[in-house]
Amino acid sequence: MYTLEEIDRIVENASKLQLIHREPANLYEPLDYMMSIGGKRLRPKLCLHSYNLLSDDMGNSIIFPAMALEVFHEYTLIHDDIMDRSDTRRGNPTVYKKWNENIAILSGDVMSLLSYKYLAYAPTEVLPDALKLFTETTMQVCEGQQYDMDFENLPFITKEDYLMMIGLKTAVLLACSCKMGALIGGAPVPVCNALYQFGYKLGIAFQITDDYLDTFGNEQVFGKKIGGDIVNNKKTWLLVDCIRRADGEKKQALEKLMQLGEEDRALKVESVRNLYVELGVKEAAEAEILAWHRKALEELDKTGIAPQQTRNLRQFAEALLRREK
Amino acid sequence: MYTLEEIDRIVENASKLQLIHREPANLYEPLDYMMSIGGKRLRPKLCLHSYNLLSDDMGNSIIFPAMALEVFHEYTLIHDDIMDRSDTRRGNPTVYKKWNENIAILSGDVMSLLSYKYLAYAPTEVLPDALKLFTETTMQVCEGQQYDMDFENLPFITKEDYLMMIGLKTAVLLACSCKMGALIGGAPVPVCNALYQFGYKLGIAFQITDDYLDTFGNEQVFGKKIGGDIVNNKKTWLLVDCIRRADGEKKQALEKLMQLGEEDRALKVESVRNLYVELGVKEAAEAEILAWHRKALEELDKTGIAPQQTRNLRQFAEALLRREK
Repeated sequence: MYTLEEIDRIVENASKLQLIHREPANLYEPLDYMMSIGGKRLRPKLCLHSYNLLSDDMGNSIIFPAMALEVFHEYTLIHDDIMDRSDTRRGNPTVYKKWNENIAILSGDVMSLLSYKYLAYAPTEVLPDALKLFTETTMQVCEGQQYDMDFENLPFITKEDYLMMIGLKTAVLLACSCKMGALIGGAPVPVCNALYQFGYKLGIAFQITDDYLDTFGNEQVFGKKIGGDIVNNKKTWLLVDCIRRADGEKKQALEKLMQLGEEDRALKVESVRNLYVELGVKEAAEAEILAWHRKALEELDKTGIAPQQTRNLRQFAEALLRREK
Repeated sequence: MYTLEEIDRIVENASKLQLIHREPANLYEPLDYMMSIGGKRLRPKLCLHSYNLLSDDMGNSIIFPAMALEVFHEYTLIHDDIMDRSDTRRGNPTVYKKWNENIAILSGDVMSLLSYKYLAYAPTEVLPDALKLFTETTMQVCEGQQYDMDFENLPFITKEDYLMMIGLKTAVLLACSCKMGALIGGAPVPVCNALYQFGYKLGIAFQITDDYLDTFGNEQVFGKKIGGDIVNNKKTWLLVDCIRRADGEKKQALEKLMQLGEEDRALKVESVRNLYVELGVKEAAEAEILAWHRKALEELDKTGIAPQQTRNLRQFAEALLRREK
């Protein structure tokens, strides 16, 4: 079995895109740029770790499909940044800002297609299933993004709405990453499905962690300003839970705070943060993350694969959820 | 063999999209809308006609891949309309105008993925090749669109630039449509490739015809205002040829005319049109279309398939290039 570091290195090497040509430049430069500004590469790593439960043979027929997941993910970020009007990502200008909107649309488009080019390296015998899994997932990611945008216009959403939305927007791709590795590794269907569920539940935990860190993370480590979600009234797990808990005076206080804008940033962030602590939202989020993490590990057990072998995946999940950024 | 009308009908029936679900509405309604506002459905028809040279068995394994070509094409139109800031298409509001830009980006995105879902119905034994052909083509279409946008900022382009750009932006998808049908029909490689070339050359003729009709078409039949390309200084075959021919006085006249804007529309269109006639550009375009049409038909002959059987394709090409809109 490969170590965590060895898998990291394989993915890093593969992150320099294999392209037949790079013309026209305005189309392809943004792709190289997106790959160059970093990223945790979770999806290809999860894919390779899952694959590694079944095989040590790290050739093109698994590496390219693993990278298809990353390429697809990066494409969604290019388009999301246009739709959100985001100027920066990972401390760098977004493609939309660095070039322009048209270029961001089109280079995102070609990046999406490139992901299918990479997927096509999957072994012929699993290609139909790989294609089906990938396309189902990628369409769900679009659905999740649409729900996310739709929810912005609603005064409130339920916990169920939120879980459904992050399920589609984030969790399914992590789930797909795990299942893809298993599929290409030749795992039996129940193992593929258990790894899908592992990835899915890990994905839910991951997104709630993301929401949590945006408010309670360490700014130095996190690399970006704390409280962005609060300022934007983003319907995070924390806000949804807070709205559910707050009544009477606290409810009014929250509503008033939500009216505040960028100019009252510091006050808004600190006040809402305190409200989260007072109402037990912070603790509840920590418990929720732990619960989904446990559920994810239970799915790993269901694979019937020896703990010795699933250790990498378990460590990977642990590191993901204990991260500070 | 099916008649032209029977193939038309199969495509028409298939144009009502098969979707697992239609939620969220903001994501999927634009897809139904695009399919509902018409379109010549050239690409699936070419695909089915090519397939029909080899087989009469019109099942899901050919109809869905044929529609993948149309779905992909419609998605490019959604995104093109954002990038061009076009308000109308086929006399109807564009998706970008009818909904908004974010919805147009995302519904285009999911439509692109849906095309892969449909492509995946291709028979397993040809799926790897079908996927390779489709993805190569779709990436080329993006390249063509990027070149088209890049060229807008150049004072002039050569005939070669133009042919390269329309080759990528338009011709390869028609070529792919023909080859896809042959591939799924089980044709030998040389036949697949000859049909690709047929579609490609027909595509070039088709695009030049499009340019020609925008200036010299019959407004009533054409369904949209004549001269749009002239008003926008679009680098059509006509303009590229005109720039090449014009010198001295005519060159100066052309340059002055290109400075005119929407407010001088009638004058600009009539004057440039006259210049095209005077300089022999109109005739040259007619000859060029004829030449590419002939080259396309020569490719059909190269398939070695009996003229009796290729008659539908020949009639289809004929109708395409003799159209008034």
